[in-house]
Amino acid sequence: VGIGDDAAVIPVRGTHALLTTDALVEGTHFHRAWFLPEEVGHKALAANLSDAAAMGGRPTHALVSLILPPATSVAAVERMYRGMRRLARREGVRVIGGNLARGERISVTIFLLGDFPKGKPLLRTGARPGDRVFVSGRPGLAYLGLRLLSEVLPPRRFGKLSARDPWLPAPSGEPAWRRELRMSDPEAAAALKRFLLPEPRVRLALALRALRPTSLIDLSDGLSIDLGHLAESGARLHIDPERLPIRPRFEALAHALGEHAVVACLRGGEDYELLFTLPPREAGRAGRAGRLAGIPITEIGEVADGRPGTFVPHGEGWAALPPLGFRHFQQK
Amino acid sequence: VGIGDDAAVIPVRGTHALLTTDALVEGTHFHRAWFLPEEVGHKALAANLSDAAAMGGRPTHALVSLILPPATSVAAVERMYRGMRRLARREGVRVIGGNLARGERISVTIFLLGDFPKGKPLLRTGARPGDRVFVSGRPGLAYLGLRLLSEVLPPRRFGKLSARDPWLPAPSGEPAWRRELRMSDPEAAAALKRFLLPEPRVRLALALRALRPTSLIDLSDGLSIDLGHLAESGARLHIDPERLPIRPRFEALAHALGEHAVVACLRGGEDYELLFTLPPREAGRAGRAGRLAGIPITEIGEVADGRPGTFVPHGEGWAALPPLGFRHFQQK
Repeated sequence: VGIGDDAAVIPVRGTHALLTTDALVEGTHFHRAWFLPEEVGHKALAANLSDAAAMGGRPTHALVSLILPPATSVAAVERMYRGMRRLARREGVRVIGGNLARGERISVTIFLLGDFPKGKPLLRTGARPGDRVFVSGRPGLAYLGLRLLSEVLPPRRFGKLSARDPWLPAPSGEPAWRRELRMSDPEAAAALKRFLLPEPRVRLALALRALRPTSLIDLSDGLSIDLGHLAESGARLHIDPERLPIRPRFEALAHALGEHAVVACLRGGEDYELLFTLPPREAGRAGRAGRLAGIPITEIGEVADGRPGTFVPHGEGWAALPPLGFRHFQQK
Repeated sequence: VGIGDDAAVIPVRGTHALLTTDALVEGTHFHRAWFLPEEVGHKALAANLSDAAAMGGRPTHALVSLILPPATSVAAVERMYRGMRRLARREGVRVIGGNLARGERISVTIFLLGDFPKGKPLLRTGARPGDRVFVSGRPGLAYLGLRLLSEVLPPRRFGKLSARDPWLPAPSGEPAWRRELRMSDPEAAAALKRFLLPEPRVRLALALRALRPTSLIDLSDGLSIDLGHLAESGARLHIDPERLPIRPRFEALAHALGEHAVVACLRGGEDYELLFTLPPREAGRAGRAGRLAGIPITEIGEVADGRPGTFVPHGEGWAALPPLGFRHFQQK
């Protein structure tokens, strides 16, 4: 498997090795005024772990390549590694070293190596008519976290904060504005946490293998775009917006941010949830697999016969669902 | 083997896997006014291949993680990959994909995976008294290339060139100023080539394994600093400056640039040559191994008893050789 799926798979001594790489770039994927160093370390590794989860793989080793401005404090780098190591330990991954280079903006590139202890890689191509479509967790929540940060501390106001920048010498804890925002509302706190400290679904993906998913992908570009990625293999997906996992509190927070809840759920990116299809005879077991992993699983549609693509009910028939773009900070 | 040696080594099914990562960052390791896209692709991979060579490993797979400004032309990216693929093909490495992110400055981070088909990794720690010290190729030549570029087109003059920037749309070939510089003198052409298109010594390192080197390292920080890295393991290195591989033409070019040839040879970085020690009984075979690989090998000193460090003759005794720093563009 080469470029195009979520990770590369190479044959090693009769089995398969998983290789994947992803970068977290300042100004593109994070702003240092929003993120604590621990969160940058966590999120950089989480993005890679999610690529491993998307293949049904077990990540084992991580290499880290850092680009840092000369003024970055050693304390901030230590905090970044602490956030990375905490997640690595929890997921059974060894951080085995890396490389450091100077540059104008922070970037954290991670290279993840893994294997497939329970068989072959799971691909995004293989959904068949009759299969059911599932999504884990609460897609769109991370997007609401991004929107909250953009509202409360938009990039044009970053300049005023440099004195309290935790990446410079004398690092501090969570800034007051962020603590207040978090304390204001439990859903806001959940949204911020999902955006700043996303949880890759590695163990859920390994558990799902027993249900023989016909396709699997992680949500990184947003539900509507990632549905499109599943459909690209020739599948016709019938999605029911009524079944999307949208709670009243999510709806209220989306509304407060001037967003439609269904649109926020479909467009939101960086969820690191799993989107997958199961054959009908296994569909009933999905919920139990989710409960064992502590993550809700929701059936949101099925694979139909006909022209490939993602479709939603429209009058008597079906209408194509346009990709609702989430491309990091491009929407601004 | 963890952080500290040239690459990480992890056990895989009874054998060893090699993992290494290195980044080429615009403004730190290269300026786009100096480098053609092909050269950036080549040099990013070469830096990683050299880390593999430094362990006596055989690189097999490369993953590429790019950060690119949005204005970068697709043609430039294709040219960069072309330079990378050309070197990969020659060295038997497969480029298996990677990741692309937006950022303000170009950076090319490569992760290299390999193995050790002829046994264990070669480490930088193991030189014993009586061993001979060798260096391959012509250390310092890349540094003269960097000095030439800095003289002819210093960074303060970059602004004037943006219209001809080969990374922007409508990429062009080699700029006239660079072609003229290259044509002016064969040594200048060799120095530019060594800096822009360095040759990692992967095959030489594999060939040297037969001579059981007691330590091995690649020259990336400069000969005097990398000698220090060998000495850090407790070795006392007696280096004879008279024996350094300095040709009259190198001396003339160094002189024209206002540099002392011996200092240029000792301080120059990014040579990607090999520095290694051989037991005395194998020392006579080093030259032949180099001739087979087409690369001159020079004996420059030996490992002595006594206080560790790098020493040069001084009167009746020996004086410590200070590290002559080369840290990318820091010397300016």
